[in-house]
Amino acid sequence: MGHGVVGSGVAEILTTHKQKLFSSVGEEISLKYILDLREFPKSPLCDRFTKDFEVIVNDKEVRVVIETMGGLNPAYEFTKRCLSLGKSVVTSNKELVARHGAELLKIAKENNANYLFEASVGGGIPILRPIDQCLVANNVDEIAGILNGTTNFILTKMINENMAFDTALKLAQDLGYAERNPEADVEGHDACRKICILASLAFGKHVYPDNVHTEGITKITLEDVEYAASWGGVIKLIGSCKPLDNGLMDIVVAPMFVPCTSQLANINDVFNGIMVRGDCTGDVVFYGKGAGKLPTASAVVADTVDCCKHLKTRKRLFWADSTENNIADYKLSKVKVYVRALADDISSAYTMAQEIFGATSRLDRKDAQEGEFAFVTEEPLPYGEILSGLESLKRLDVEILSTIRIGNL
Amino acid sequence: MGHGVVGSGVAEILTTHKQKLFSSVGEEISLKYILDLREFPKSPLCDRFTKDFEVIVNDKEVRVVIETMGGLNPAYEFTKRCLSLGKSVVTSNKELVARHGAELLKIAKENNANYLFEASVGGGIPILRPIDQCLVANNVDEIAGILNGTTNFILTKMINENMAFDTALKLAQDLGYAERNPEADVEGHDACRKICILASLAFGKHVYPDNVHTEGITKITLEDVEYAASWGGVIKLIGSCKPLDNGLMDIVVAPMFVPCTSQLANINDVFNGIMVRGDCTGDVVFYGKGAGKLPTASAVVADTVDCCKHLKTRKRLFWADSTENNIADYKLSKVKVYVRALADDISSAYTMAQEIFGATSRLDRKDAQEGEFAFVTEEPLPYGEILSGLESLKRLDVEILSTIRIGNL
Repeated sequence: MGHGVVGSGVAEILTTHKQKLFSSVGEEISLKYILDLREFPKSPLCDRFTKDFEVIVNDKEVRVVIETMGGLNPAYEFTKRCLSLGKSVVTSNKELVARHGAELLKIAKENNANYLFEASVGGGIPILRPIDQCLVANNVDEIAGILNGTTNFILTKMINENMAFDTALKLAQDLGYAERNPEADVEGHDACRKICILASLAFGKHVYPDNVHTEGITKITLEDVEYAASWGGVIKLIGSCKPLDNGLMDIVVAPMFVPCTSQLANINDVFNGIMVRGDCTGDVVFYGKGAGKLPTASAVVADTVDCCKHLKTRKRLFWADSTENNIADYKLSKVKVYVRALADDISSAYTMAQEIFGATSRLDRKDAQEGEFAFVTEEPLPYGEILSGLESLKRLDVEILSTIRIGNL
Repeated sequence: MGHGVVGSGVAEILTTHKQKLFSSVGEEISLKYILDLREFPKSPLCDRFTKDFEVIVNDKEVRVVIETMGGLNPAYEFTKRCLSLGKSVVTSNKELVARHGAELLKIAKENNANYLFEASVGGGIPILRPIDQCLVANNVDEIAGILNGTTNFILTKMINENMAFDTALKLAQDLGYAERNPEADVEGHDACRKICILASLAFGKHVYPDNVHTEGITKITLEDVEYAASWGGVIKLIGSCKPLDNGLMDIVVAPMFVPCTSQLANINDVFNGIMVRGDCTGDVVFYGKGAGKLPTASAVVADTVDCCKHLKTRKRLFWADSTENNIADYKLSKVKVYVRALADDISSAYTMAQEIFGATSRLDRKDAQEGEFAFVTEEPLPYGEILSGLESLKRLDVEILSTIRIGNL
């Protein structure tokens, strides 16, 4: 269902890799219908197209349905109806999984069908199945990742080529990496959906994107990039989650300082990287292309193969719904931060900052403007206390230019 | 079977993570026996120990057997007997899998049992299951990895701390990373077993370690490390394999120059990293701890969970035996190389090198000794031609100090 970028990639792989898939499944995966409202008269698969979902859902020969339409509607209704009839559904639709995953997994379970969505996080990078299967003997202590290729491309251009945010965004748009309306990427919403899916899977309860504090990268400047370098790191848009002792989840999407020693610091351009910290394995990192036609389609096809192998036995991929909010207030989350500010009297302003935040370290950069100073805090403090500390500085005529979290990565 | 480092880790995880494993499998995994010739009177599991394999193999309640004995014998015989009786076997024994994997997988298949060995490559890093399942919709174009933590630790000390090989090896031994007899690590045999397992799985035919050209790191010097830095990279021990158009496999284990832009360049200390190049996904990299008690044990337990979930349905993990040698002559493999040499007349020696190898680039380092020069070749040449070219240089009184491949990574 859906013959756009990913859907046409799926059709391509099912055709070009037929023999390899046959030897894995043990029988042929036959592509019976392609649902799309548009016409594709020149497609070699033109005889498979239909505009009528009813044809598909009512055909008992159809055992597995691939949904690559994107968006909530009509994908949500179509998926529910397929699962209700015991047809397995495979998707790359992170918006739908992040919003309705728990409900759809429940319907799948009740109807002995599978609902799989490896492609919804990290594109072609194997990540959901490794977390669910390979790391099953671990309690996951934390997941943190670069989950959005567009913003990582923009930040890489800012870091490596000293390109301003607006210029880098324009370039990303010209190259087709960013949409004309780039909000979902640059404001962090796309990364938020993905960390929600990872958190739901790893910790067993649905995490809803609307409950997750999310900051984008639109306020990051080249000055911040320079200070990050002088600190010994780079700025990356990180989605992270970790379970707290009180049963709540500490989860956030925000730009962070990442030390160069971290594996995540070296993930550049449109690539994604996801770190999973297990209590037995330690840090495991998965790297690759987080988007794109064939990488994403290859993950969809791998799920399809899995469904075809398990037509009679259900996989246990599952998480429960969460009725109350299971997320800790982000203002209680303890973090260190980087702060860039302007003051008439830097020396006394920095002294005040030290009184407010405790131990801090000054950072330097060449060509700092008159009155500019920057520092990182050394003691983790609840983010709310950091915000009120910054308010105190403002009342003393210090202008706060940037505040960026220091990632514990 | 085997209560050493990994085996005791498995027992520990089965105990400490009982609840998490229960919710994944849907029933309890009961650890019935532990086979070891030694006595463990103080173990909380002391009532499970036996010295008699017959007790285990003849107990029909035993459905899954975990082999963490290491070495070929008696692990080989024990595994064969378990599989022959339809008991699934999980192992971390890379030596056994690399030597007898095809035969054991065949016995497993014939008896509707599973033989799983995720822990045999990359310790706690999920790699075999991702290749087999998640990347099933890809033709794998190449696999290359840092597969041995001990040698990576030694090289990291040489690169970052200017420590000589012997000193770094001694340190690795003192820290317990290297054996008293370090040959299997430093001569590349351990990495060779792992690349053979990866190649067998990815390409479907058993690759025998004895057929793979293997070079270790004992000849690497700090001078080479300096030249690699001036070239823009680091020296890593790489196991790599790629299928050739003629149906043969190009496979080698050797130290290589790795450019700093490669994800494999940033994998340090005892960590492992494995790059899988799929025709749809592009490069995917898996990073984590390649050895150690709990990381390795966690992979063993994940396989055990998989066996328990699939007691009645066999997983399709399989490769065929290869009767004839399916590996291309390493002298036909086209590579670029770095060469370090001594000559009375550097200028004329380098001119001769250019005549022999075509386009080359000179490398520099501070404090080069009298008569020392180094270069990298720019055109890939069959390795045999490079060796004979070096022989020609020797006949002209050029002393060849080092030859290291340039990794295409």
